Formats: sequence, C-alpha cells, structure tokens
Amino acid sequence: MLATLIHAERDIRVETVPDPVLSTGPDAIVKVVAACVCGSDLWPYRGVTPTREPHRIGHEFVGVVEEIGPDVAHVAVGDFVIAPFYVCDNTCANCRNGVSTSCLGGGWWGGNDRQGAFADAGQGERVRVPLADGTLVVVPGPIPDELVPGLLTLSDVMGTGHHAAVSAGVAEGDTVAVVGDGAVGLCAIIAAKRLGASTIIAMSRHPERQALALAFGATHIVEERGDEGIARVRELTGGIGADQVLECVGTKESMDQAIRSTRPGGMVGYVGVPNGGPELPVRTLFDRNVGVNGGVAPVRGYIEELLPDVLSGAIEPGRVFDLELPLSEAAEAYAAMDERRAIKVLLRP
Amino acid sequence: MLATLIHAERDIRVETVPDPVLSTGPDAIVKVVAACVCGSDLWPYRGVTPTREPHRIGHEFVGVVEEIGPDVAHVAVGDFVIAPFYVCDNTCANCRNGVSTSCLGGGWWGGNDRQGAFADAGQGERVRVPLADGTLVVVPGPIPDELVPGLLTLSDVMGTGHHAAVSAGVAEGDTVAVVGDGAVGLCAIIAAKRLGASTIIAMSRHPERQALALAFGATHIVEERGDEGIARVRELTGGIGADQVLECVGTKESMDQAIRSTRPGGMVGYVGVPNGGPELPVRTLFDRNVGVNGGVAPVRGYIEELLPDVLSGAIEPGRVFDLELPLSEAAEAYAAMDERRAIKVLLRP
Repeated sequence: MLATLIHAERDIRVETVPDPVLSTGPDAIVKVVAACVCGSDLWPYRGVTPTREPHRIGHEFVGVVEEIGPDVAHVAVGDFVIAPFYVCDNTCANCRNGVSTSCLGGGWWGGNDRQGAFADAGQGERVRVPLADGTLVVVPGPIPDELVPGLLTLSDVMGTGHHAAVSAGVAEGDTVAVVGDGAVGLCAIIAAKRLGASTIIAMSRHPERQALALAFGATHIVEERGDEGIARVRELTGGIGADQVLECVGTKESMDQAIRSTRPGGMVGYVGVPNGGPELPVRTLFDRNVGVNGGVAPVRGYIEELLPDVLSGAIEPGRVFDLELPLSEAAEAYAAMDERRAIKVLLRP
Repeated sequence: MLATLIHAERDIRVETVPDPVLSTGPDAIVKVVAACVCGSDLWPYRGVTPTREPHRIGHEFVGVVEEIGPDVAHVAVGDFVIAPFYVCDNTCANCRNGVSTSCLGGGWWGGNDRQGAFADAGQGERVRVPLADGTLVVVPGPIPDELVPGLLTLSDVMGTGHHAAVSAGVAEGDTVAVVGDGAVGLCAIIAAKRLGASTIIAMSRHPERQALALAFGATHIVEERGDEGIARVRELTGGIGADQVLECVGTKESMDQAIRSTRPGGMVGYVGVPNGGPELPVRTLFDRNVGVNGGVAPVRGYIEELLPDVLSGAIEPGRVFDLELPLSEAAEAYAAMDERRAIKVLLRP
C-alpha cells in the first residue's frame, strides 16, 4: 500500500510500504477515507524538530474499518470511524479524568520505530489502530461525501480549538480573543461562538482567513500585533482586555500576545504546540491574576459532544480545508501549508 | 503616634511619626486594633528586595474607624473594620470582575513615597485609608477579643489561601496537595476543606505546623521534597498526582514541586509571591494539560464570604498566630518569623 514518510527536512515521499496486519487482540485495520496535514507536521518538515531516520507521518484520519482483532467489541467491520490524533484506551484514570492524551496505555501515531506498537500513521492507505475500542469513534452511516471534511476536523483541529475554549472557561456572554488564524485558531472561533461568547476578536492579517473567521463567528478583526495588537484588543474590551484569549500558535510571541491581551482575572487557553518551549513569565501572570490552562488537546473525549453539530451542519469546521489533493501529492500538501498557500490540506488515498 | 518603618535589610524600627489626617473626601482614619507581619514583608527584611529609603511597612490590619471624610457612606465612626492588604474602590470593571487587586483606582499600602496617596501602612497605631468605602469591610459588633486574630487573617492570609483553592477550582471530593506550611499554606488547607476536598495532603517538615495542618483538615502529611515528594504524592493519589496543588511559597522549587505533583488535566492554584520570577516550564504544562491559575489574591472580595465562618467558629484561621507582641517589639516579630520561630506574629499597638 502507499503511505507518506518523512525522510528529512522538506523531504516528504509517498512510498510503498507493507500492508498493516493485526498484531494484538484490541487492534483494528482502518482503510483511510481522508487524512490531512497538521500544523505540527510542519515542525519536522521545516527541520525545527529533527528527523533522525525516515518514518511514517500523519496523525489525523477518518476511514472505514476493514478488520478487527478478537478483543474489539465496540467497533465493527464496515463502520465509518474517526481516529483522534493519538491512541488511548479510554478507560484508565487519566482518560476518565478527561485527559486521554495522557492515557496510561496510549501513545502517538508514527513513532520512529516502524515496527513499534504505535508506528502506523494517518497519511496512508491503511492504518493499524491499536486499542481500537478506546481510540475510534463510530459515526452512524451512511456518510455523505460532503460531510467527510467536517468529520476529519474532529480528529484534531476542531477538538483542539474546542479545548482552547474549554480550558479558558469560555461561557455565555464572554469576550474572547483568538491568537492564530490557522485551522486551529479558526476552529477556536467556532468553539467560542458555540459556547456562547458574544464578542470574538480574531487576530489575523490574511484576507481569506479573516473572511473565514467572520463566517465562523468572529465579531472583530485585529490585524496589529505586539503592543499595537494589545492596544487594539483593549480598545475593543472597555480598556481592560479580553475575558479569555485562545492561543493557537505556540511561539513565544503568540503566547506573549495572548497573556498581555487578557484582562486581569482572565484566562489564556492555549493549544499551540510550544515550539522550543517559551517559558511563561510568572510575575506578569501573578500581578494580574491571569491564568494559563490547556495543552495537548484530549480530542477523543470531545468527539461525541461535537459530532452532532457537525452532522447537523450547525458548525462547519470542514471549511478550513481549502485544498484537496490525492495522497500521492502529499509533498505538495506540505509545501502549500508551509508557504501558507493553503490553510489546511485534505488528502484522499 | 508610633509606626513601624523598614530602614534597610534587617533594620526594622518603631518610630514616632505624624498622626494621619484626612486628605480626601473618601478617606477614613482607622485606629489599629491588631496588625501583623506577612511572609512577603520578609523579602525586604532579608534584603531580597532592596529598601532604597526608609518607609512605613505592613499591610494587614483590623481596627476601629475614628474619622471619616465627607464622601464616605458605608463606614461610620466606631465601626470595627477589616482592611485588605491593598486599597480598592470596589466599583471599577476589574473590581466587578472579582479582581480588586487590579483596581483601576487602587493601590498598595506603604509605598516609598511617604507623602503619597497610599503611603500609610498597617503596622502602626493609626492608618489613613483612602477609598474607605471600597476598601474596608465592617464587622458587626461587639467584637470579642478572641475573634480578633481570626478577623485579622481575612485581611490577607485566609483570603489568600482561599484564592489558591478557588483559582485551582477545588470542589467536592477532590484530592488536593498544599505546598508551603506557612500561614497561607495552612489557610489553604482550611479553604480546601471548606470547599469540600476529601483528601488534603500537606507538604511540611515542621512538627508544630504538621499538627496545625492536621487540625485544619489535612488528611496526610508528606515530609519529602523534590522527586521524593512527588513520588509520595503520587502514591497517595492512585499513581497520577493530585487534582489540584496549591502553591503557597513562591520559589522556583516550590512551583516545580507543585506543577509536577499535579495530575494530568489538574490545576495549580498559586499565591506565593514569585520571588525573582521563576518562569513556568510551558512544555511540562502542555504535555500533561496542567494549568496554572492564581496570583495576588483579591481578598477584599472574599471577606464577606468567609466572615460568617470566622464569626461562627466554623473555621479558625486565627490559630496561625502563634506569637503575639506589642507593636513596640515589631523588630522581634520580624526576627521570629525570619528564623521560623513563629508561623505568624500578631502585633498590638
């Protein structure tokens, strides 16, 4: 079968790899219907994180179950399933606490060890899914093709934007600013609106992304950054800052923007993967009682909550996909996202 | 009148200063019944923060109103009042948001400018209170003398411990660890119990403080620190860490202890004044979804909530005062706290 591998910085190849086989009782084999490229895939693509040896890549996919192991009870052959961007048992203490990304028996797609338990990855024709009962969520069919992009966002970006909003405690009537106009930032706007925010400030300089932000529920656009951006947010929030700021980038600059745009007593919800680990300025947080909450989003636990709104069309996160390519053109998908020619690229095997 | 001044590192003097006079319409003059020394007063005492010129010191006091300005409406001469450790109008946007420490018109006791609006301080015979209506909370009298220590804790340590617990989101049935066995840490135990925590782990090495922690509601004592302390907390919490950890010290080590003792998806509530600004390790927080919330505690807003429980004896935070001295011996009060011979010292003018 075909699958995407990263060999080195800016070296993405679609190659023939062995078909996956069931290796444990709780496994399932999923035939991928759609996969996509994540903003965090760009860190190894850009060489920001090193690639020591070629390995499978991709952690967002939806598909149809082709085979199940003898211990699988909640997923059947033929089911349409959403896979979160990680593997979890959905039963351990951390999963029960809503933090399935810290599952005691779970792991990540596409590890360096190609033979390892979690070595399969999403950007391929098939994926072996360990802990299928815990990891996969079945979508009742039939699934019209136009719903596929929206369902695919539940594997990562929509749940991640939602996590930013939930972590920040967004509630009815709140004033929210969103730092980052990538797919996650745009989904955070959907999430903030869905949770009742009455003012949503999107920080974006890109006309197409601004348009999508407004379509998703943003009430204001702020193009400025740094001190000017903070001043604009304060102007729009009675001089004090936003109740919550959703940080969806992961750089030192974006986190600083978020912290200083938050009102005293407010909260930063952050889901941008911290690139290089910008440390948080505790004195700035302390003096103004600004909290910071979030992290790697436990999207598995959000799928059931968000799925009905995707199926009904109440939210349309699938609109973040502005380019669709065949799997064979995965390298172009990475280049398009790297060069910001596309917000997010959907790949069809 | 007599008041306490800090002249330099380890140089505390009680000196004769001019009696305070009303200077603005919203002022009140309060005759101090009891004041105390705060752990944060030890930073300048120890020279960790520099004292550039002699100035009044002390920010926790209760007393009786002696005079009021023409604009004061909610406080009357003869009222027994609690002063929070800062001045606030209790009407601005930040006060309404529950963050009166960020009051747009407020300020801090004992600034370096002895003639400034907020230059008065608590460790003296009398204090001029700006914005008396917003700052002071009246306690219905008569006030039995044995209630004075408990009421005095509402000016800072009890409200601050409560803020740690509220910021961390402590709720019924939660498992809470408290880092710090000073007066604030001990009050945080009271607060956690009051909010319904079922397991409260006090991290303390001092037998007398351990005894008070247990009396206040701690269910377990952990004497170890660092990796060993974290391992002990995990042993007591099903291997994953505490739901919330209340950080009541403010050093790099204590914050590290707190963050790493929190379970995935849990929250650190922190109120220890960050001494030197230990930066927070964002990657550690991100990977485990551990949030950090808190800051300089807006205790003014908590006084009404906590006061009935102090008056009824349901909580006894006044027990943190294990030494009482006349105001004239303020220097010994500082020394006793610095050398950890006393948890907290009450001063009587």
